[in-house]
This record gives sequence, structure tokens and C-alpha cells, in this order.
Amino acid sequence: MTHRHDILAIGNAIVDLIAVADDDFLLRHKVHKGAMTLIDEARAEKIYAAMGPVTMASGGSAANTVVGAAALGAKTAFIGKVRDDELGRGFTHDIRAMGAHFTTAPAVEGPGTARCFVLVTPDGQRTMNTYLGACQALGVADVDESAVKGASLVYLEGYLWDPPEAKKAFRKAADIAHAAGRRVALTLSDSFCVDRYRDEFLQLIRSKTVDIVFANESELHALYQTADFETAVNLMREDATLAAVTRSEKGVLILTREESHAIPAFPVDRIVDTTGAGDLFAAGFLAGLAKDAPLAHCARLGAMAAAEIIQHIGARPETNLAAMAAENGLAL
Amino acid sequence: MTHRHDILAIGNAIVDLIAVADDDFLLRHKVHKGAMTLIDEARAEKIYAAMGPVTMASGGSAANTVVGAAALGAKTAFIGKVRDDELGRGFTHDIRAMGAHFTTAPAVEGPGTARCFVLVTPDGQRTMNTYLGACQALGVADVDESAVKGASLVYLEGYLWDPPEAKKAFRKAADIAHAAGRRVALTLSDSFCVDRYRDEFLQLIRSKTVDIVFANESELHALYQTADFETAVNLMREDATLAAVTRSEKGVLILTREESHAIPAFPVDRIVDTTGAGDLFAAGFLAGLAKDAPLAHCARLGAMAAAEIIQHIGARPETNLAAMAAENGLAL
Repeated sequence: MTHRHDILAIGNAIVDLIAVADDDFLLRHKVHKGAMTLIDEARAEKIYAAMGPVTMASGGSAANTVVGAAALGAKTAFIGKVRDDELGRGFTHDIRAMGAHFTTAPAVEGPGTARCFVLVTPDGQRTMNTYLGACQALGVADVDESAVKGASLVYLEGYLWDPPEAKKAFRKAADIAHAAGRRVALTLSDSFCVDRYRDEFLQLIRSKTVDIVFANESELHALYQTADFETAVNLMREDATLAAVTRSEKGVLILTREESHAIPAFPVDRIVDTTGAGDLFAAGFLAGLAKDAPLAHCARLGAMAAAEIIQHIGARPETNLAAMAAENGLAL
Repeated sequence: MTHRHDILAIGNAIVDLIAVADDDFLLRHKVHKGAMTLIDEARAEKIYAAMGPVTMASGGSAANTVVGAAALGAKTAFIGKVRDDELGRGFTHDIRAMGAHFTTAPAVEGPGTARCFVLVTPDGQRTMNTYLGACQALGVADVDESAVKGASLVYLEGYLWDPPEAKKAFRKAADIAHAAGRRVALTLSDSFCVDRYRDEFLQLIRSKTVDIVFANESELHALYQTADFETAVNLMREDATLAAVTRSEKGVLILTREESHAIPAFPVDRIVDTTGAGDLFAAGFLAGLAKDAPLAHCARLGAMAAAEIIQHIGARPETNLAAMAAENGLAL
């Protein structure tokens, strides 16, 4: 049977408010550079008042991945919770405008649509301050069983462990997917997120609740609590069916029990804003996987999509990724 | 006496919603490529529903200029009308975050903050569809006499001729500025805008209500209704005290009765979105003028600021323009 969607993702539905900031600003406001920190509404107001002029774009890690994969030609769907407010309508417009299927009912009461205040330092690093807002209302009722069954791959973000009910939605989706013979992928999201939920993430991987793991180097080190890269890689190879370890300018390592592929980073002219690099790697990789491309091809597509995203502000593609793939011999 | 501000601008306070679109989209929706078209709320909804994922950033021609000039170290102020809604608060945050003085009282009733739906085609051209909303509430009462008197240069956008009351604010500001011995600058804004208000614009220039004129080639041709560039240039030289004619990749021509300077375009790697090119040229030029830099230096600064803006989506700088100026020997 053909799948209704190649990739169904569940994640936090967030709008990004992005501003340039210097390291001094991060120090003054005591935000941890390079990390994603959860903040409450009062702190959100304070950071917004202090930050520079804002570029606003829809974000959310798994949502960025879905949009990127759609730009590469994948049929995608997203489950996530917005409020029925201006930001929520903007998020909904943007993800649907890329052709992604998004029908999760918005919250009609409670906190507003989630906002992530992204501070981009001159070195291109991004530091994220997330007010989860309406994302906290995501629950098992939002997981549409037929949509999960109808997707070739289910993709889940580690950040879903932060809102209280979302992890139940995550587990429900994984169970439905496996019962239907689908594969489930997880991104570890952030090293601090791994610190918060290490045991649960390891259990998810070891129990094969997830089949495919995305991690960057610091997340991998955090997961296995080792500073030695080889040790961590070997442990991941033991635990995961398939893993992609992204290493910034060092490229990416694809691991299975049987094979490993080291794929170089895609060349970039100038790094402007690394927001979404991991999300877009996953987009390219999963778009390839859904079309049964060889692992090395999938990884190259991911590296290309990540390279596009870090050369401008924001985590949604500004270039025709499918055309870029074709130009680089990576068409699916 | 020292001026409170180097540049005070009056313009439409607009938030840009920017999306990539192909030429086919423009044809289907019958929008005139490269132009700024005024639309009503119903059409705004229709275009938004059809357009791709959106990057949102504060815009408005003169407001972009003020922000760009502030980024180059000029002390700036802005007069323009938003509504007391989410977009209006965003516009206010952004312009103040650049250090521009902005205290125009927001409208508390009537239409919402103005929106410009910017469609960027793969060739980097932008096509604008503007819903003026709250801008239509700008009037003479909003022109703060002491602020105008205290500014070295007053900058006005031709688009102010569109909302019914704003031209009165424009004339009031010009009168106050001249009575205080200040210079007044005008951008012709858009060739269709020139078509709408040709006689009035010519009268403003010939009566010396404005001292400095910014025009691109098509605006210049529209103003003098001639296809011959030399003819148009000679007419402008007769009429204006000082004029800057921007010519995209052909650079810029600076004209006075006595001198003319042809300044080449600043090199760019890749044109992504030309939105704001003219606005940022004016920013650099006026920032230089306010510091009494030579005309050629002012023009080079303008060309540099324009080159920065066309290499990314949106009309607000993403690079530290003052540092860029210093690196290129153009520090003020």
C-alpha cells in the first residue's frame, strides 16, 4: 500500500522571534549560550523588551524538519498545539503553505502560542529561550491514529519531554507506528534536554521504542556521560538500530550495527545563524529515507539542507531545496 | 546648537510579511511585478491565504531608512501610525530596539496596523501588496514640531501621498523644517506612486519644498515621462538642489547643479531579495550627509547598505552596518 504521508512529526508548535545579540547581552541576561532554556511568560516579556529588532518566522524543531522535508518533495504531516491567536494562525498558515498536513485542533483557552526568543551572536551561534505556552496542552487525544498508521516514518522531538502530557502522545504514536510496521525516529534535541531526561531517552532507544536516533556531538556525550567521542559512538551503535551523529563542520557520521558512513559537511560561504541546522539535517535525511535512498545519499541531502539553513536568519528554508538537491546530484 | 536627531523621517508604519513566490503566482493573482500596489483588507486576506510560508519583519520605506541610518550611528526619529495591536507593538519594539525615537500615539480604533505582503521571485525582485490600515490615521497632529525643528534632516516618503491626511503632515513638517533652517529630503518611492502624484511631486521639488530627491531609474523616467535617461537626468539637475539616482547594478548618480558623481554598485555575492534596496541607500546617504561627509562618501555608504540588504530576506539590516562601513574604509 502507498503511504498517505512519508513523514509524520510530533513536536512543539513554536513561533521564533529572532534577533542579533552580542555575548555581553547573553551574560547580562544570564542565558546559557548555545542552549535551549525554558522560560515563563514574565521572563519572555523581559527578554523581548531588551532584545534587538526581531525577524519572526514559524519554528519548532520537528516542525522545521517537516517543512524542510516537504521542500525536498516529501509528503509530510505535523501534530502540535497552538492557541487560536495571531501567532497560532501564522504558524498554521506557514506549515500548510509548505504543503504539510496540519489539523491538530488549536487550544481555545489557556496560554498563548509558544514563542522562542532566539538570540543570534556574531559567531552564528543561536541561544534559545522558549516559552512553551499552548504546547503544554498537547495530549494523547491529539494523536490521530490513522495519520500515524498512514505515515512511512514517525519523527518525534526530545523536547516533547518538557510539556507534561506530550510524552504520552509520543509513546502512543510510537506504539501505533510500530503496530503498523512503521519506523520511529527521535532527535535528542539539546544536551540540556538529554540531561533532564537521560534515563528515559536511553530506555526509549534500548527498548526499540525508537528505531532511528538523531544526535549532535554534545547530545551524544551527554547521553552517555563521556567526553570520549569513540566510546560514545560505540555505545550508540550498540543501542540504536540506525543513528546519525551530526558534527557541524566535521560533517556527519551514520551508524548501524553493520555499516558506518562519514559524510563531509556541505560547503558554506558564510555562517549567519545556526538555528535549525539539526532540524534541517533530519529533514534531508528522512526525506531520503522515505524514498529508500541509500544511507550516504540521505546523509548528503541532510548536510545540504543544513548548509542552506545556516546561511541566513531563521530555521525555515529560503531557497528551493529540491532544485538545490537536483543541482548537486542529490535529487530523490 | 547640536541637533537632537540627525534624521527625522515620516512614513507609513508597516509590517512586512515576506514569502517566496514564482512568476506564475504573480500572474495568477494579477499583481504587477516589481511594483507596490495598494490593496484592501479582503484582498490582503486572499493573498495571505495563497502565499507561501512567511518571514515577518518590521518594514515601511522611511522606517527602514531610519533603522539603517541608526545602524550606521545616526541619531534618528520616526513619525508614523500603528494601531494598538500585536503588529503595532512589534513595529514599535523593532524601531525602538535600533535606538530610533518613536513616540507617535498609536490609533486606538479603526483598521489594524498596516501590512505589506511582499512576494519575492527567484530573481530577487520584490512585489509589494500593501494594506495601509492604521497608516490612514496619520495626520498633522502627529507632527511633533519640536522634534522636526531638532532634526538636522527631515526625510519624507512619496508613499505618504496615498493615505489621505498624511500629505498634510508632510507639508507641515517641511514648513517647520525650513523655518528652522533644516533640509528636507523626499524619496519618490515607486514609479506607480509617481504616476499617481506626478504634478504634486514636481511641484514639491520645483518649489523647493524638498531639497534632496531620491529616485531610482524608473521613478525618474516616470517623473519626467521620458524614456531617455540623459534627458531625465538633466531635468532633475535643473529642478532639485541635490538628487541621488539609484541604478541597481549600475551604481548611483549624485547630482547637483555644480557636480555629479557616478558611484559604482557595492559588490554582492548573491541577490536574494531586493526589498529595501532604495531605503537602505537613502539610509547610508543621509547618515553621511548628517555628518557632513563628502557626497561621494555618502553615496558609497548608501551603496554598501543597499548591498547588505539585498543579500537576505527582509528590509532591515542583519549585519552590523557600522562595522561593515569601518571594514570598507567608510566609517563616519
